[in-house]
Amino acid sequence: MKTAILSVGTELLFGQITNTNTVFLSKELNLLGYDVMYHYTVGDNTDRLKTMIDYIFQDCDLIITTGGLGPTQDDLTKETITEALGDELVSHKESLKALEDYYKAMGRKMSSNNLKQAMMPSRATVFDNDAGTAPGFALLDKEKKKMVIAMPGPPREMTRMWERRVRPFLESMQDSVIYYRMLKTFKIGESALETALMDFIDNQTDPTIATYAKEGECNLRIASKRKTLDEAKEAVDEMIEKLKPVIGEYVYSYDNEDFVRVVANKLLDRNITISTAESCTGGMFAGALTDVEGISKVFNRGYVTYSNEAKMTELDVSSETLDKFGAVSEETAIEMARGVYKNTKSRLCISITGIAGPGGGSEEKPVGLMYIGCIFDGEEHVEKIRMRNINRKWNRHYGVLSILDVINKVIK
Amino acid sequence: MKTAILSVGTELLFGQITNTNTVFLSKELNLLGYDVMYHYTVGDNTDRLKTMIDYIFQDCDLIITTGGLGPTQDDLTKETITEALGDELVSHKESLKALEDYYKAMGRKMSSNNLKQAMMPSRATVFDNDAGTAPGFALLDKEKKKMVIAMPGPPREMTRMWERRVRPFLESMQDSVIYYRMLKTFKIGESALETALMDFIDNQTDPTIATYAKEGECNLRIASKRKTLDEAKEAVDEMIEKLKPVIGEYVYSYDNEDFVRVVANKLLDRNITISTAESCTGGMFAGALTDVEGISKVFNRGYVTYSNEAKMTELDVSSETLDKFGAVSEETAIEMARGVYKNTKSRLCISITGIAGPGGGSEEKPVGLMYIGCIFDGEEHVEKIRMRNINRKWNRHYGVLSILDVINKVIK
Repeated sequence: MKTAILSVGTELLFGQITNTNTVFLSKELNLLGYDVMYHYTVGDNTDRLKTMIDYIFQDCDLIITTGGLGPTQDDLTKETITEALGDELVSHKESLKALEDYYKAMGRKMSSNNLKQAMMPSRATVFDNDAGTAPGFALLDKEKKKMVIAMPGPPREMTRMWERRVRPFLESMQDSVIYYRMLKTFKIGESALETALMDFIDNQTDPTIATYAKEGECNLRIASKRKTLDEAKEAVDEMIEKLKPVIGEYVYSYDNEDFVRVVANKLLDRNITISTAESCTGGMFAGALTDVEGISKVFNRGYVTYSNEAKMTELDVSSETLDKFGAVSEETAIEMARGVYKNTKSRLCISITGIAGPGGGSEEKPVGLMYIGCIFDGEEHVEKIRMRNINRKWNRHYGVLSILDVINKVIK
Repeated sequence: MKTAILSVGTELLFGQITNTNTVFLSKELNLLGYDVMYHYTVGDNTDRLKTMIDYIFQDCDLIITTGGLGPTQDDLTKETITEALGDELVSHKESLKALEDYYKAMGRKMSSNNLKQAMMPSRATVFDNDAGTAPGFALLDKEKKKMVIAMPGPPREMTRMWERRVRPFLESMQDSVIYYRMLKTFKIGESALETALMDFIDNQTDPTIATYAKEGECNLRIASKRKTLDEAKEAVDEMIEKLKPVIGEYVYSYDNEDFVRVVANKLLDRNITISTAESCTGGMFAGALTDVEGISKVFNRGYVTYSNEAKMTELDVSSETLDKFGAVSEETAIEMARGVYKNTKSRLCISITGIAGPGGGSEEKPVGLMYIGCIFDGEEHVEKIRMRNINRKWNRHYGVLSILDVINKVIK
């Protein structure tokens, strides 16, 4: 079905906020098999919105709108859509009840403005909003050929409503089902991944394989559109089994998980205690790891040994090693990890030292060079990382991903 | 001038990338005094692009396009605009020379595809691209009433071209100049800020004051549009002087700097050595601080003392304190800072302990409660932070901002 996404909100035209709703909905609609043909954004203005709806319907059958459903005078989307599709607003019992309950729970009085939010087009299918006060709706035009689906603008409300109500509604209108899994990889670039998968990508109409590069990582979406969910699942899972021998070594998740969560969950599941020492990443790795709730069960402590003095006093790195090999060296990395072990006795002790840039590089030790030291149950291991120097932020981010990669391989 | 932004690219309609170009250009165009009325996105399709240009010109005088200027067959933006505005493509000498130089420098052969990039509309003003191979251009229609400006799609190329070539070109078409400064605040919400500034916002046509909430911080844009840059600057600076007594205590930058850079630069300028101990933020603060290049001059080391054991062995927090007051307490926070001082003798020793959630809260000590301990040149100070619990990620982010806020006030 030819579909357009129409965002309503003057704040978008001012560039005050990034339109994340549109990218979310585009991805989701395409996965459901709806052809997203256009994105439009218009301000909170009845005439322009009305003109735009009429224009879009010249080429599309479905318009998904976000924004303009709030209680203020600026919020005109519902009124305009209702008029454009030849319907009228009536009080909607369930929505009124939900609003009254909401205000009762908040201990606040409902204003007449809020009553406006319980008015719905008479022919609409109403979608309740469990993350805010504005309901959404689907409305067909009189000839039942064209449809508008309206959702609130705040991303949290929109995505909740999409997942709970709108996606199932749209799925029920389709005669096929789409199922997909997102694989996540590290240490292989998008073009190398595409080359490795060339045969699968070119000769394949279903399941489809698509790659998405993302800040040092690369995602791979395997999607199938079949008559039933079981058929689609089977096709996707079969394809993944075929891909495993080709790219399995790079895959850290077959189900769209964050790298740090994959690693944290392994540590938690196997009760592997961990402590860290960071130089170039300056605490970012510990910061990322402790983003996982409950990690305190295994994470003992971290050292940010930025100065040589700190490396010596906290971790017993020897001044000879620092003099002879430098702070960025295999030798310093492993001595840092040994110091962590000495202090903590954690099963997994991991260290990183490197040159994040922009300064501090040399021909012998360029910006982007990093060493990761690792001791796991007594086994020592050092990995040299020689990344393409993009900038300080990227290099440090890549350092954190590399630590995750080392841990993921070592404890597997 | 009524303006529309038109993004060209099928990858946008698939939701593969977020349209950051549009938010950037919207902000910039509004600042220059251009009225952005619509955003449009269309795929790489000649017919739909042509139809859309004709449609947009019914209501707008200027279209800014991004994308579709590359060398492949998919890239049709230039050809379509040229046709829509009744011009023809001719070989453009400077662009051809630039392309030849580019390929020579790369040691690669130029393909015939690339030659396509040196073809430009005969009446166009050409904008060279110093970050890629596709030039941009401005083209008037035959009646010289409507204009299209075309820029490449990759954000790095687009923003470079905008800043070097397109913005000056558009400024030269204006008979007034816009100047603005962005103030950044912390610890005051957007609505409280608007209330505090009510009189200024309501009675003010120039300079204008606009607020932008952003992840715990709030920005304030003061903009003036005058005949000359000097007049505009003077008006903005005068307004800022008037605002200082009202909101000055919340402002950490009058020139759009990052909070962490403001604090890091103060530490560097005054040569204040710093060491840290983090519990709930788990190294995020040290990670953020070390994002600033050159910070090694003052940053000595950080402790991520996540376990009670780590707090005791690394920082000499007493077991009595932990037993009696708990790990999240004023007493533990200051003992952590004292431990940092004992180990490092840094002039500024800062600690944080708190409950990031989602678990671990109680009636007495709810999720979102944090204590920051600080010793600066021997002066001890503890700050209690009682934030609104949104989620773990937000709470920890707010913890990092709060540390910056404490340092900024203590060393000022």
